[in-house]
Amino acid sequence: MAGCCGALRGFLFEYDTPRIVLIRSRKVGLMNRAVQLLILAYVIGWVFVWEKGYQEKDSVVSSVTTKAKGVAATNTSQLGFRIWDVADYVVPAQEENSLFVMTNMIITVNQTQGTCPEIPDQTTRCESDANCMVGSGSTHSNGVWTGRCVPFNGSVRTCEVASWCPVEDDSQVPRPAFLKAAENFTLLVKNNIWYPKFNFSKRNILPNISTTYLKSCVYNAHTDPFCPIFRLGQVVESAGHSFQDMAVEGGIMGIQVNWDCNLDRAAALCLPRYSFRRLDTRDVDHNVSPGYNFRFAKYYRGLSGQEQRTLIKAYGIRFDVIVFGKAGKFDIIPTMINVGSGLALLGVATVLCDVIVLYCMKKRYYYREKKYKFVEDYEQGLSGDTDQ
Amino acid sequence: MAGCCGALRGFLFEYDTPRIVLIRSRKVGLMNRAVQLLILAYVIGWVFVWEKGYQEKDSVVSSVTTKAKGVAATNTSQLGFRIWDVADYVVPAQEENSLFVMTNMIITVNQTQGTCPEIPDQTTRCESDANCMVGSGSTHSNGVWTGRCVPFNGSVRTCEVASWCPVEDDSQVPRPAFLKAAENFTLLVKNNIWYPKFNFSKRNILPNISTTYLKSCVYNAHTDPFCPIFRLGQVVESAGHSFQDMAVEGGIMGIQVNWDCNLDRAAALCLPRYSFRRLDTRDVDHNVSPGYNFRFAKYYRGLSGQEQRTLIKAYGIRFDVIVFGKAGKFDIIPTMINVGSGLALLGVATVLCDVIVLYCMKKRYYYREKKYKFVEDYEQGLSGDTDQ
Amino acid sequence: MAGCCGALRGFLFEYDTPRIVLIRSRKVGLMNRAVQLLILAYVIGWVFVWEKGYQEKDSVVSSVTTKAKGVAATNTSQLGFRIWDVADYVVPAQEENSLFVMTNMIITVNQTQGTCPEIPDQTTRCESDANCMVGSGSTHSNGVWTGRCVPFNGSVRTCEVASWCPVEDDSQVPRPAFLKAAENFTLLVKNNIWYPKFNFSKRNILPNISTTYLKSCVYNAHTDPFCPIFRLGQVVESAGHSFQDMAVEGGIMGIQVNWDCNLDRAAALCLPRYSFRRLDTRDVDHNVSPGYNFRFAKYYRGLSGQEQRTLIKAYGIRFDVIVFGKAGKFDIIPTMINVGSGLALLGVATVLCDVIVLYCMKKRYYYREKKYKFVEDYEQGLSGDTDQ
Repeated sequence: MAGCCGALRGFLFEYDTPRIVLIRSRKVGLMNRAVQLLILAYVIGWVFVWEKGYQEKDSVVSSVTTKAKGVAATNTSQLGFRIWDVADYVVPAQEENSLFVMTNMIITVNQTQGTCPEIPDQTTRCESDANCMVGSGSTHSNGVWTGRCVPFNGSVRTCEVASWCPVEDDSQVPRPAFLKAAENFTLLVKNNIWYPKFNFSKRNILPNISTTYLKSCVYNAHTDPFCPIFRLGQVVESAGHSFQDMAVEGGIMGIQVNWDCNLDRAAALCLPRYSFRRLDTRDVDHNVSPGYNFRFAKYYRGLSGQEQRTLIKAYGIRFDVIVFGKAGKFDIIPTMINVGSGLALLGVATVLCDVIVLYCMKKRYYYREKKYKFVEDYEQGLSGDTDQ
Repeated sequence: MAGCCGALRGFLFEYDTPRIVLIRSRKVGLMNRAVQLLILAYVIGWVFVWEKGYQEKDSVVSSVTTKAKGVAATNTSQLGFRIWDVADYVVPAQEENSLFVMTNMIITVNQTQGTCPEIPDQTTRCESDANCMVGSGSTHSNGVWTGRCVPFNGSVRTCEVASWCPVEDDSQVPRPAFLKAAENFTLLVKNNIWYPKFNFSKRNILPNISTTYLKSCVYNAHTDPFCPIFRLGQVVESAGHSFQDMAVEGGIMGIQVNWDCNLDRAAALCLPRYSFRRLDTRDVDHNVSPGYNFRFAKYYRGLSGQEQRTLIKAYGIRFDVIVFGKAGKFDIIPTMINVGSGLALLGVATVLCDVIVLYCMKKRYYYREKKYKFVEDYEQGLSGDTDQ
Repeated sequence: MAGCCGALRGFLFEYDTPRIVLIRSRKVGLMNRAVQLLILAYVIGWVFVWEKGYQEKDSVVSSVTTKAKGVAATNTSQLGFRIWDVADYVVPAQEENSLFVMTNMIITVNQTQGTCPEIPDQTTRCESDANCMVGSGSTHSNGVWTGRCVPFNGSVRTCEVASWCPVEDDSQVPRPAFLKAAENFTLLVKNNIWYPKFNFSKRNILPNISTTYLKSCVYNAHTDPFCPIFRLGQVVESAGHSFQDMAVEGGIMGIQVNWDCNLDRAAALCLPRYSFRRLDTRDVDHNVSPGYNFRFAKYYRGLSGQEQRTLIKAYGIRFDVIVFGKAGKFDIIPTMINVGSGLALLGVATVLCDVIVLYCMKKRYYYREKKYKFVEDYEQGLSGDTDQ
């Protein structure tokens, strides 16, 4: 009991601190301070100034809506003079973070369920019924083969297929793009962001933007960097591509909105920055399955009640709005953690200098003698104590 | 060779440990222990209890499906008595993590390709053909201007436009909202989550929920917190907004599902928590481009074979289901890392106490003498050793 | 001033390093080195080899497009012989990261606005008008009740409802699935990834894939692991489920693309790895609200000009493409940070050995005497210095 009390008293009332050798040497002293200065400069410069280690960080939560505007007129033998507006070329009408604008198409009108000859190619050309399988051919055929060989036109015979007839001929993509006027369409991006940790929210239509300005402005990196209305042609060109090239076979553009904010400063300085990037890399030398397209159909009821459809293979540009960013605000906990690990790094200076002093300098034996006290295991020899 | 062996023997068979001064002082001893206790309390309290530093963490992977239910009846002069069901008001029919419910609309029936007068406003009103440009006007016009000035009605003349005719008049948004009954529609959210690191998966339809309960229940934060069926009106009200206000011009609601789980406890305690937030901030004083709407069209084939469409400018509420959460489970590696850095922090106590003992206390010179051994560079003066 | 200069000179030209006891003992020395070796092995093995702590890390940014191929033929009394192609069974025509393939359906043709009897069930069966409420019934009814009780067929009478008529009867899901041939449809997944920090981008159609190969290949984990074309049946089976079972009530499949890359090695070694997982867990014993379905409608104009629609309750499989991955590349900063914290951990060896040497060994009093110098507070007693 008494021993226990003594131990507790010893534990509570004793203070242990390492014993230090203070070497009065210009060379070593200066070197030590220089190394400490370097580490301090790194800690303050990198951790605090560059990485803002004194700030609590949060990632952005965002909601996006998009809206296209613009009208195009086309005049073809198949469709005649025709106006295309938003409801025609945006498919589907809305998506969560992206918008597809149709720029080119292969249109097959008045398809009905029936049988008709396939489009001629290596696998569908035939001489007689013997060349045609029965049942579904490859997954690339347009329907179920009937096993008959029928004339496609005056000179060519192809296998007959049960499908939506006539079958689509997508061997030729129209050049230039059918809706090449899409270059001048505009895209309004509405974006609300939220930093949950700081309960800070903002929209990309800034408070100083008036309705009048919003009706007429178009984004320009230099003159109108905060106008949320983008001309499609300009978006593609900013990413270093040609709109008319991209319009033919389609593609995917990323509209990146960066909301990096330092919330220790005024909220009005937290501003969106836009940048543009093509998301489907297009190797000129490796042109397998390029672009972006999909098929959809508009269904009709014919005059005699039978189902008809207009099949559209739509090529176009999908604009994906990608919102990212980090906000930081002063907070005591990350500050303490970084100060702590900064101090710990200062200890490295001592280790480094020790190595130099004890192994590299001429007077190393002298210094070692001062730093170390040698203790022999008393069973193995003298309990020599060089520390006098 | 012998020297090398000796160095190796020295390296292997020597043990170096810092020499310590043990100062028997109540004041300093107690202070030292108090600082250590504070640091220990921080390490245990903050890192282990609050942040659960002994756990491996993982982020949630989720899949969401949604389904709306409800029927509304409207009676207008334009459309007559009409029933609206899910296939009518949910556009598009499905999306990955969200669902759009149309609550208001401007409907323009029986549009065909042709020419017709624009809706009168500042830029379209005209006296004679001289006031009307030829070609596509602004991006905000409905089509391509023909250059003619035609009567819009008895008193007003506007420029003629080639477009889908008649053109849409969206100057007046219906108030109250057309489908105001949407307030009582319900939304079923099915959500499966997965924590890949722990191979733990769960769905928000909990095992104790029966088919009968699921057919009749409606989410209520207090009485039915685990019912995955939400009344739309209640979702908007929980976020502090008025459904009927929001229904007029549309908006975006976030349904947040939080799956924070402590997997050291029973799996049955890992439960979803729902919360609701409006994602499009609506400043009352800064009302530029409010709400959420988009246009889509239903295409018909007229009696004479020409294409017709019904254009709908749909205002409504998009419900985005946002699933987030972190799960933690005991793991040896983060435990060791946190114990290690906690121990390292204890070293800060010694540094702090040293500063106080050696610089602030009355007996500082006495303590310094005990802690330090001064060594002069022997070229610069006496190789004085105060440690005697 | 002179004192200040002296202090500054002291600060600059003094070097302080801890005094060390070197104990020459085989046992303790070997133990110390063994503990240090273990820690070193952990630091090098775990942090550097396993976790690649010398690399800067980045998360993948990705864009995905999908395209289904395949044709199915059905022959039913309701619809007759009919071919289904991509434009028929993919709804909506495109989504950002997923694709829905309809595999089963309940189709209700020629619906018009009107009044008709409800489908008989517990709540809709009636004897007389007194059994039928007026106004919208439950949210599960198909429309607005008129309050009349009308014959559903020869023997059963149900309440009349104003709605799209005839109302859908979804009590029986077709078994086997209507489009069971969907098992052989294929899905082309095009995926471009980007590691922003390293400006490294790649697509899942690898440079050595030719157009010919892409036209005929089908993904197989062993023979064609880099073919981006997946047979739907195989995707479901790889996840351990039966396609035909899943096709009946629908579900959600995740196609996971893993792009973990070590960019210190050749770019050609950065390859996608595909895996498949069912995202809607299906408990056999807890079968509440299984599968995945939604309703959509195709709108027609009838011969007399009235609006008609074909309502489709679509059951099917939604394929969500989930792209993830981390890339690492050598960088000096994480290397330094990890070397630093590894060195810090070496200090733990000293603490551990101290505990053993000073508290557990027989000669502990001898070692303690060498390590510690006891200093009494001179007010409390002798200024004893056991360090001789």
